[in-house]
This record gives sequence, structure tokens and C-alpha cells, in this order.
Amino acid sequence: MTELMMSERCGFRNPEIMFSSNDTPEEEFRYANEIGAIINLDDITHIDMLKEVCGIPETICCRYNPGGTFSISNQIMDNPGDAKYGMTRPQIRDAFIRLKELGARNFGIHSFLASNTVSNEYYPKLARILFQLARELREETGVKITFINLSGGIGIPYTPDKEPNDIMAIGEGVRKAFEEILVPAGMGDVSIYTELGRFMLAPYGHLVTTAIHEKHIHKEYVGVDACAANLMRPAMYGAYHHITVLGKENAPCDMVYDVTGSLCENNDKFAIDRRLPKIDKGDILVIHDTGAHGFSMGYNYNGRLRSAEVLLREDGSFMMIRRAETPDDYFATLEGFWDKI
Amino acid sequence: MTELMMSERCGFRNPEIMFSSNDTPEEEFRYANEIGAIINLDDITHIDMLKEVCGIPETICCRYNPGGTFSISNQIMDNPGDAKYGMTRPQIRDAFIRLKELGARNFGIHSFLASNTVSNEYYPKLARILFQLARELREETGVKITFINLSGGIGIPYTPDKEPNDIMAIGEGVRKAFEEILVPAGMGDVSIYTELGRFMLAPYGHLVTTAIHEKHIHKEYVGVDACAANLMRPAMYGAYHHITVLGKENAPCDMVYDVTGSLCENNDKFAIDRRLPKIDKGDILVIHDTGAHGFSMGYNYNGRLRSAEVLLREDGSFMMIRRAETPDDYFATLEGFWDKI
Repeated sequence: MTELMMSERCGFRNPEIMFSSNDTPEEEFRYANEIGAIINLDDITHIDMLKEVCGIPETICCRYNPGGTFSISNQIMDNPGDAKYGMTRPQIRDAFIRLKELGARNFGIHSFLASNTVSNEYYPKLARILFQLARELREETGVKITFINLSGGIGIPYTPDKEPNDIMAIGEGVRKAFEEILVPAGMGDVSIYTELGRFMLAPYGHLVTTAIHEKHIHKEYVGVDACAANLMRPAMYGAYHHITVLGKENAPCDMVYDVTGSLCENNDKFAIDRRLPKIDKGDILVIHDTGAHGFSMGYNYNGRLRSAEVLLREDGSFMMIRRAETPDDYFATLEGFWDKI
Repeated sequence: MTELMMSERCGFRNPEIMFSSNDTPEEEFRYANEIGAIINLDDITHIDMLKEVCGIPETICCRYNPGGTFSISNQIMDNPGDAKYGMTRPQIRDAFIRLKELGARNFGIHSFLASNTVSNEYYPKLARILFQLARELREETGVKITFINLSGGIGIPYTPDKEPNDIMAIGEGVRKAFEEILVPAGMGDVSIYTELGRFMLAPYGHLVTTAIHEKHIHKEYVGVDACAANLMRPAMYGAYHHITVLGKENAPCDMVYDVTGSLCENNDKFAIDRRLPKIDKGDILVIHDTGAHGFSMGYNYNGRLRSAEVLLREDGSFMMIRRAETPDDYFATLEGFWDKI
């Protein structure tokens, strides 16, 4: 709901907003429909709910889940069979037929089969699966497919040893699939959508934090003034985020540190056994690639407050685009409670 | 900082508050000292910081980390050597000497060696280690040890097959250690503190949620109106939380479900492959043992709002002790931003 509100408030209009949700509450379908977002149905049972809540819009999308595992060159990329998202193959056909009966005119297909791939093969392979599916569904159901949303999954190289995706090669791979599968079927007018949130944003966000402690016990620690409240990926996934020490970019990495936040959680470590230059109190550490799944996954564990966000423009100017939380924010939902105790 | 504020606002005073932190910002030492909390120093380097920030109080505590692994009967319980907390054995001696020189009079020891143990042996074993340490430190440094904080670590049986801790047996084990180690050394006046947050609170909190979707794809899913924003332990740790379906407590568990929230995270599942009675839309599910590390670890991922909290009293009456978040709360830190875009 709040993401829809934010999209609208940021000035996006109607089909610029694609509402991909799962386990969706009724009021979110209603609101998405009100603001004209394209609704991407996660499940066949959502058709009846949508119909009841706000009617079936002319343009509708369904999310597909082929099940099983998803491999490229024998390497398992992800496990759609265990994913809660999307419809099975028979369901998406039945869903299209039913939605057509209920008045839908323009159909879309959406699928997400692997997360954060660093491979130029994923997107073209996904495109081939969905383009083929689009042909089959048009044939089986007679609907007009107007767009295919290849979703996300194009990742970034969090570790410095990884080769980044070549977005031009990926685009070429998708174009080739488009021309081989859709064009010959007379479907060259199908629009291709993407949702490359991580690819577009992750590398352009940084968590900037100051070293406030050093600690020498059974391991060497540097304590900083950020914590997992600001960036949870290392704690939740054991994710690697590269760290640069400002002014020491070219210094030899001859220390091995755990870089910790202050939470009462031993997984609150931005780095474990990381080779870094010698860090002194007051040094500024830049934690890379936090532009996606960074602030948005922040929490308030141990009562920690979330930080401000600053936009740095290409011309070097900057603007605070989100203020830091205060204790008043943290206690806001307890208003009135203090008087009762 | 906010936890200190909350403790004070809840009416706790002075040494009723124990401030155990790590990677501590200066202002938190200052504030803890102001409200008279007992400060538990996590690191030897914190002595100078504390001295500079607010001076060394008369009563002070140090946290001990023995390193290595912590085992009971050859079973590894946890890995203190990899934990960011506490001082080494030589450091805690040096810290006591230095703190004594700086004017501290009453000394405490704190240590936490294993989390959520379901064993009557953990606490007595920890007590023996700390009681022995207290004797040695008194001998080596001449300080007066006035309390030993055995911290937490006494867990609860999240899964129904586990035998709960016997708190009386644990108490007896600690008493025996006390009488065997401290009393003969003339230290029978040392106070014993505990911090049994999880043990005291976890079983008495429940996340109450309604089934709003059922989904039949490659697995069977029940979608509920709560998500990991309300309870993150299953997503973060793969933790088991028992689930009861109201009115179906005695129904046969002849279905196997994944119980999911709505986040765009496939780990947003309160249960995976769980045997449960047949669940219908509208059924109320009670997720157990959420009184600790539940709401406090909640987050706002995907813009999800955190729920209200209701206190149920023994006499059956109830009181809302925290209101639900609203979109205004979620957007509060963006105030002023909308005008700039």
C-alpha cells in the first residue's frame, strides 16, 4: 500500500506503475486499481477477489512459475518450485481464459526465476521461456498479449572478483529471442518491460559510516557507527559488501578485521575476516552497493534509529532526501501508553 | 539510547538498569551515566572513552569473553571465540586494575556464552566459570566484586518435541556452584543478577494473524495478513515458531503447508512444509513464542507497516499498548522531501 502511495506521490501515473504483489490484501487491489496501476496477479484465486473488490481492469498481467529448478548450462540458478510466487502452467492458461471472459482485453506475462544473477545468459533464457509461453497462450486462449515483463534478476557483482553483467549483450540476447520467437508469430508489437531495480540502483547507493572503536580480543574488530539497522544484507544473508576506507584507497590491505555494528546480535557484522588497510578511529568507511535492499530493509532492532539519506548529484551538489529518525519517531506508536502505566 | 530512554520512562531507576552494549557511541555512555544505570563495559578500550565522556562511576561492570568454543558434555553450544563481545582473560584483569585506579569501588562481571540453550546445565556451568573468575580477579586485583551477572542464554523450547528448561533445577545448580566456589572464599555477599528476557517473555507473546489466501501451485500455501515485518525470526534464522489454528486445535494435521507473508522475499514464510489442519480463508492463526525478538525485530520492508500490540491481562481484560503504524509514520522522515521534487 505504501509503495503504491509513494509511486503515486513521486508522480508516476497509471501504467507506469506495475503492482506485483503476493498474498495481497483486498484494499491493495482496490487502491492499485484506483490509481490505474497495472495489476500483476500472483495467483489464479486472486481473479475472484479482484473481481469482487474492484472489477477486472481492461489490462491485466499474470505471474508465471514453471516450478522445478532453473538452470543455465547445468548450473542451478534458483528453485522456482519452492517459490511462493506465480501460477503453474495450467493455471495461467485457465486464468487467461477466465480473465478474458470477465472483460480483460490486454494481457501481460510476468515471471522471476532467479535473483541477482551475474550472467549474460539469464535474461535471454528467461525471455525465450516467456516468449514461447506467450505464443502458446495466445494460441490456447485467443487473448491479445500486449506486454511481457521480464522482471528483475539481473544482478550486480558485489565481490570485486566478479565480472559485471554486460547489459548490451543481455539486450542483444533478448532481441534475438524476440526476433526468433515473437516476430515470426506476428507478435512483433508485444512490449517488453523490465524491473531492473537492483541493477540500476544498488551500485549507486553507499552507506557511509565512521570507525568509532577498535577492539583486540580473540579477533581484530573495528566498530562503526552504523549497524544492521542501516543495512541488513550481511546479517540476513551473509552477503558481501565491499568496503573502502576513505583516504586509504591505495594503502596495503595488511589487516584482517571483522567490521561490526552495535546490535546485540553477533551477525551484526558488515565484514568478517576482511583484508583492509589499518583503520584508525575517526576513519570514514564507505560500504558499497547499498542502493538496493539497503535502507528499505532497515529495522529498529535494539531501538536503533535509521539514518538520513543524502542525494549526491552529478554536479557535486547534494540534498538531504530523508531525515534521520529521532527518538520521537521511535516512540510515536506508544503515544498515550505512557499515561496508562 | 532509545532503550535507555524507555527503561527510564517505564519507571526503572538507577541500578535497576544495566547498560550492556557493544561498539557504544559516546553519547550513550553519557546518558547511561546520567540516569545512573550500571555500565557494563564491553571492551578494555571503553575505559578511556568512559573516563573522558563522563568519568568512571563507583559501580562498574566488565564483560568477559573466554574465547574458543563453549561445550557441555562434548556438545558445542556456541562459539565465543567468534563473538564480538567482551574482554579476554588478561584484559579483564587489566581493566579491573585500571578501573580501580580511576576510582571504581564496586565491580561486576558479566558474560554470555550461548544463546537460547534448552539445557539445565548451561547456567550452572556458566556460573562456575564466572564464580571462579571472580575469585581469581579478586585475588589478582584486590577489587571488591559486588555482583555477577549471568546474563541470558536460558532459552525456550520453540519446537513441541523439546523438553523445557527446569528453572528450579537451574537455580539449584547455580546455588550449588555459589556455595562451593564463592562462599568458601568469603564471597557469600556477592549478588547474582540474571537477564532472562527470552525465557520470561517469549512464550507470552503471540502473533495473531488471519488467513487471507490459499494457493495451490507446486506446493500448498496459506497466505496470512502478517509477514516478516511483524516477525523476522523465521526469515532471518529459519527459526521454527509453532502455529495453532483457532477452533481447530484438535483437528487432525493432515495438510502440509507453507504459511507465507506478502513480502517480496521467498524467505517470508512463517512455516515451511508444516503439518497443520486444513485452513480456510478467515481462519485465525496464532504464531507462538513471539514475546521476544518479535515486534522489536520488526521492519518496514516493502513498505509494510508494523502492527498494534495488545496486552491480555490475567483477568481476561485487554489494553492496546502500542498502536499500529500508519502510512504517515512510514513517510514521516520524508517530510519536506515531497516539496522539493
